[in-house]
Amino acid sequence: MEKVALAFSGGLDTSVCVPLLEEEYGAAEVIGVTVDVGQPQAELDEAIETARALDLEHHMVDETEAFAALCLRSVRANASYQGYPLGTALARPIIAQAISEVAQAEGCDALAHGCTGKGNDQLRFEAVWRRSSMEVVAPVRELGLTRAWEIEYAADRAIPVEAGNEGDWSIDANLWSRSIEGGELEDPTSIPPEEIYEWTAPISSRPTEPAYLTIGFNEGVPVSIDGEALDPVTLIEQLNDLGGRHGVGRNDLMEDRMLGLKVRSNYEHPAATILLMAHTALEELVLTTDERNFKRYVDDQWAQKAYEGLIDGPFIGALEGFIDTTQGRVTGAVTMLVHDGLARPVARDSEHAVYSKEAASFNTETVHGIEQSDATGVAKYHGFQERFVSESMREQQTDIEE
Amino acid sequence: MEKVALAFSGGLDTSVCVPLLEEEYGAAEVIGVTVDVGQPQAELDEAIETARALDLEHHMVDETEAFAALCLRSVRANASYQGYPLGTALARPIIAQAISEVAQAEGCDALAHGCTGKGNDQLRFEAVWRRSSMEVVAPVRELGLTRAWEIEYAADRAIPVEAGNEGDWSIDANLWSRSIEGGELEDPTSIPPEEIYEWTAPISSRPTEPAYLTIGFNEGVPVSIDGEALDPVTLIEQLNDLGGRHGVGRNDLMEDRMLGLKVRSNYEHPAATILLMAHTALEELVLTTDERNFKRYVDDQWAQKAYEGLIDGPFIGALEGFIDTTQGRVTGAVTMLVHDGLARPVARDSEHAVYSKEAASFNTETVHGIEQSDATGVAKYHGFQERFVSESMREQQTDIEE
Amino acid sequence: MEKVALAFSGGLDTSVCVPLLEEEYGAAEVIGVTVDVGQPQAELDEAIETARALDLEHHMVDETEAFAALCLRSVRANASYQGYPLGTALARPIIAQAISEVAQAEGCDALAHGCTGKGNDQLRFEAVWRRSSMEVVAPVRELGLTRAWEIEYAADRAIPVEAGNEGDWSIDANLWSRSIEGGELEDPTSIPPEEIYEWTAPISSRPTEPAYLTIGFNEGVPVSIDGEALDPVTLIEQLNDLGGRHGVGRNDLMEDRMLGLKVRSNYEHPAATILLMAHTALEELVLTTDERNFKRYVDDQWAQKAYEGLIDGPFIGALEGFIDTTQGRVTGAVTMLVHDGLARPVARDSEHAVYSKEAASFNTETVHGIEQSDATGVAKYHGFQERFVSESMREQQTDIEE
Amino acid sequence: MEKVALAFSGGLDTSVCVPLLEEEYGAAEVIGVTVDVGQPQAELDEAIETARALDLEHHMVDETEAFAALCLRSVRANASYQGYPLGTALARPIIAQAISEVAQAEGCDALAHGCTGKGNDQLRFEAVWRRSSMEVVAPVRELGLTRAWEIEYAADRAIPVEAGNEGDWSIDANLWSRSIEGGELEDPTSIPPEEIYEWTAPISSRPTEPAYLTIGFNEGVPVSIDGEALDPVTLIEQLNDLGGRHGVGRNDLMEDRMLGLKVRSNYEHPAATILLMAHTALEELVLTTDERNFKRYVDDQWAQKAYEGLIDGPFIGALEGFIDTTQGRVTGAVTMLVHDGLARPVARDSEHAVYSKEAASFNTETVHGIEQSDATGVAKYHGFQERFVSESMREQQTDIEE
Repeated sequence: MEKVALAFSGGLDTSVCVPLLEEEYGAAEVIGVTVDVGQPQAELDEAIETARALDLEHHMVDETEAFAALCLRSVRANASYQGYPLGTALARPIIAQAISEVAQAEGCDALAHGCTGKGNDQLRFEAVWRRSSMEVVAPVRELGLTRAWEIEYAADRAIPVEAGNEGDWSIDANLWSRSIEGGELEDPTSIPPEEIYEWTAPISSRPTEPAYLTIGFNEGVPVSIDGEALDPVTLIEQLNDLGGRHGVGRNDLMEDRMLGLKVRSNYEHPAATILLMAHTALEELVLTTDERNFKRYVDDQWAQKAYEGLIDGPFIGALEGFIDTTQGRVTGAVTMLVHDGLARPVARDSEHAVYSKEAASFNTETVHGIEQSDATGVAKYHGFQERFVSESMREQQTDIEE
Repeated sequence: MEKVALAFSGGLDTSVCVPLLEEEYGAAEVIGVTVDVGQPQAELDEAIETARALDLEHHMVDETEAFAALCLRSVRANASYQGYPLGTALARPIIAQAISEVAQAEGCDALAHGCTGKGNDQLRFEAVWRRSSMEVVAPVRELGLTRAWEIEYAADRAIPVEAGNEGDWSIDANLWSRSIEGGELEDPTSIPPEEIYEWTAPISSRPTEPAYLTIGFNEGVPVSIDGEALDPVTLIEQLNDLGGRHGVGRNDLMEDRMLGLKVRSNYEHPAATILLMAHTALEELVLTTDERNFKRYVDDQWAQKAYEGLIDGPFIGALEGFIDTTQGRVTGAVTMLVHDGLARPVARDSEHAVYSKEAASFNTETVHGIEQSDATGVAKYHGFQERFVSESMREQQTDIEE
Repeated sequence: MEKVALAFSGGLDTSVCVPLLEEEYGAAEVIGVTVDVGQPQAELDEAIETARALDLEHHMVDETEAFAALCLRSVRANASYQGYPLGTALARPIIAQAISEVAQAEGCDALAHGCTGKGNDQLRFEAVWRRSSMEVVAPVRELGLTRAWEIEYAADRAIPVEAGNEGDWSIDANLWSRSIEGGELEDPTSIPPEEIYEWTAPISSRPTEPAYLTIGFNEGVPVSIDGEALDPVTLIEQLNDLGGRHGVGRNDLMEDRMLGLKVRSNYEHPAATILLMAHTALEELVLTTDERNFKRYVDDQWAQKAYEGLIDGPFIGALEGFIDTTQGRVTGAVTMLVHDGLARPVARDSEHAVYSKEAASFNTETVHGIEQSDATGVAKYHGFQERFVSESMREQQTDIEE
Repeated sequence: MEKVALAFSGGLDTSVCVPLLEEEYGAAEVIGVTVDVGQPQAELDEAIETARALDLEHHMVDETEAFAALCLRSVRANASYQGYPLGTALARPIIAQAISEVAQAEGCDALAHGCTGKGNDQLRFEAVWRRSSMEVVAPVRELGLTRAWEIEYAADRAIPVEAGNEGDWSIDANLWSRSIEGGELEDPTSIPPEEIYEWTAPISSRPTEPAYLTIGFNEGVPVSIDGEALDPVTLIEQLNDLGGRHGVGRNDLMEDRMLGLKVRSNYEHPAATILLMAHTALEELVLTTDERNFKRYVDDQWAQKAYEGLIDGPFIGALEGFIDTTQGRVTGAVTMLVHDGLARPVARDSEHAVYSKEAASFNTETVHGIEQSDATGVAKYHGFQERFVSESMREQQTDIEE
């Protein structure tokens, strides 16, 4: 390969890749690309500094707005993979695409990432990259590097990585979620220590009074807080801040990775928790039973494919054909109670409510031309087939006893 | 009809049914049957007193243990209908069956309930009762009675009902859950007032320190708290008490009733919340991805049929064929954090964990004969078909542009 | 009611409704509406003649083209309810809507049908009609009429119905399918007699040579036969004719009606059989595995709702959001072998094929950057979680044995 | 590796593996194992002869009965993967297990197969083998061999393979199905030539008279033909023979392989076609609507996992928990019409029928306590929610127009 574009975070994995791409893959030139999807400023700064120390040509691309838009699009699908709102998974295709575009513009003939061979990110990056004609390489995976080897190698070459700063934790943070894995969390019986949390306040320092806030939705997309229209980035940031102060959005999961490995994952995602709950609550009011029942399966599939990094594949496109149609009526507002780790809906409003106070109430007579006695026929047919089975089984049993 | 057994709660609906069964249906004799499924003692007392005042032959049947066992069986199915753990729905078939048996023993030729024609309970009662050869009648529904009419009728006959005592609320409580509907809750935009809650403490009076408790499971059934083996009734009661003090288990839903009406429902169910979350957390550890994915659908169907009162039908039997097989490995323990309205799992333990610390860790080399570089092939095939579609679409687009 | 529009076929049920609407419902005026959806000309003629004999104001509405379009739209959903391509079910909402429009234009205040209380059609008619403010009545159901009673009543009034002409069979035919129920078919153990078939040739008189015909599709809709573009009505008629001569499209089913009754149904639908098979065969070539797998469930739901007559409800709208997106690539042609009762695909062609001869062939080396050895990693991960379970179960078993 | 057990068919792939295992993998000793699952005797003979010519220690294991039992077990799951009844897929785990047991008995430390890196069989073999501690090798895949290379290599070593005898076709046959791939079939637009078929008669030589035969089922398993009890092997053989003479069981599919490649497959499987159709027809009669609807999804999952070779994994175990429960009532008989390429059910009989002639008939009055007019209430509620949506949408539209 002549010139390779490396997905560069400034962490240990991607830093050791820089010399390795030259030494092991014969790259004539390496450029590093960092994509901003709302990770902490310190991380972005670290990338810039490490690149400078490595004498690496470095490109920074800001995709925060595109990423925020995708996060809100995922709310329409109630997107959750086994309880996880997919922060990292949603970011990867955007990052991969942005790097691919830099590579193209810079005349690269290869793309590289520093993902290991055990995780999901390698598959998400390459799902995007392998659509191009550029070569794709993954030094950490292909050379079978361990963390220990990398630390030693970095020390040998005086590569300025802050290994160990994070303690044992493997952390990924962006606008939508912060994940913590590794260390003692790898033991499923260990209770996560308070130190792993950065976005959510500990019990001891949360406000004693609950907050009530009203999320406005337009066709399934959250657009306002307490009536104030907000752009996606600001809306998510405000909810992360507010929810975080109340300790909302902690999550402890056993997650099935794509390769079949289970992993213990802890997450923080205050805004995602609030928005996903509010969206579901609004759907409860405006979707028909059939729509609600089947959308669960559609949403499950959406989350599965998004987890796999196939966000722009034809299948998600088709699922969104279903989702879009339903979301036309998901316009309205939901009031959320946020307090001490908990968020839950307490009121809903929509002009598209499939709801009639008169029909549901026990205090009214004929409504919509339906009288109480009309339910008698429904009751007679309810469980009709089941009655046959009971009979046939009872007869069978009688036969046996005789 | 000669002798009719009436499902009797001592409330307004069932009290007015007593004279109506004689007047309107020509019943020669009416007996009242109350089934104990863990409702508050005051309710049971009210039934006894009202029966005495009505000069009604009254039978009390205790099915609390059978009901508790069914609730724990529902935990194996992660049973939740649109977020509601099905307390009333699970109780109805047990109540109906118990009444049917009393009726048989007492030589009745008819069965009666006081359910309205808008709700679910009429269908649940009759799904059981219509399997027998006894006549089934439902005065409130068939005569189209309203609450206002009943109050006037009761006053005319000096029927001693405590109408209005509950305020506007329509309430049903048993061991597993307490539901609150009606009144201002019928407006989906209203925030439920604090007064509707009886089981769960208000924010102002909850403990400031979180509780950690460990739920032990044997083949999917919760059997112990913090290592102490408990019978089902005690286990549920202890968790309702503990969870209730922490304010856990409040729930505000728009629920799709069987007839197609949506209704605003509020619930309290501390034990159910804790047990369902703990059970799911254990399944995360011991079930394979395929089992987890598909069991969601199996569980959905279980909840749907249980909501319909068809708990002993052939379909639930078949679903439990699936569930039983998976639950053989759902043995272990889950530690729950319970605090200020929130319950969530923080640790899991099982000898059947589909988990290998070595396999998942980023600090290990070859495990189970698999090396990092083995994932390269997986990555190459990931999204393979999607690449075709992109190509064909890109070509198509090119054709269009030309 | 003042003026009622009656869905009128000229058969026994709807003919006795004419006087009954006046006598029993007090209708001042009755008009009959017959909607042409491709039923045999003799049926339409019978309606006209019977109306004349009854002195009934009669309206005939031709909806054949709209119905043909809906049938082809159903092909995109591979529409089949338990094996039945839904001819009657798809026709009913179109008929109901057309009658509703005549009623509106004629100033009617009520709508009536002659369906019994056991079948599906009552529910399909009323799903459309009850959206309007007109009254809906169903004399046969509401008065609990039996066929025997109707025959006697018709004889008394000299109503000129050809009762019994059809023998015992209950038949419904339109452009898409012909159904035969009743008589000895009600015994599931009886083999249907040859006389029930009208569209499909008996074994003894079919061509000995097979026919090969190529169906062209545009975005999932069949548009041509052997390269000749045809309008929907003509396309269906030609295939009914050709397929019928070869005896294709007979179908013997136990069908679950909406009320829970099972019924023995026999069908003839040559065009539907050929088109549905051809469409599926084309989807095999152009849809990804994910799309194929999930579309089965989407299609199932579509068929369920179409069977229920809810073709224009929001849920089918959402399902079609999914379907439409996938059908964008279902353009191409399928060659069908048609012979002696059997139709099956034997060749497929599309520019959107998710297929690479080179990739699939065993005679090629590296394709799309993938080598044979890349599958080694896939094989190592295949069944990874299952290996854990085997181990844990084996250990458990060992424990037990010790 | 010291001693390796090779899955040996005597074909080109496995024959070249014998010297390659010694030359390239350093095997000290190779033994060949052929497992009989009902493939043609000529194939078994070829394996023996080639082994002799190669001077290979050869083991033959007869698993025909176990395989036949598994095939009939698959009938209970209506097992079909995209239309294919899974003959090869079901055989592979049995073959792999038998070889593994020979290897263990013979003191081998390694297992080898000759599958390519593009197909499914490599994954199915290894899903079984990788549960053991023996090494697993796959020379054709790992060395990236092509057919052309193998032919030349075999010629160089005078390995006596009958390459090319089969023409271009890649064929696999066992008791349950015969598959034909490759050659001109790789072009999806080509119509398969008559020469590819061996089990099914051409149109020109089929009997002119149809056959009617009655398949008896006991708890979902086919056990008799026309009342004569037959063991599984005989039952399948008789139906392959009879169905084959009538040309039944040809199948032309685009199949999605596990790696994501689509492949054009042609199959012959007369017995499978007849048995699967008959079984479905019996389920139509005895299962409730809920059971039928959901069993489709259970069966789909069963077929998916069986296709993947994970027949003895925990997920299929759980699915069979569902299936077993339903099959308790699938006892009875189905009469099949078999003629000229077509098989279809024409009569069904079971004592567990969820069917009442009286209930379904249009000629009866009150049945099971239900009157026609009881359906009026059902009709009023049918589509209730959909009416809200129509209204809200209509209002919305009106708003827009104003």
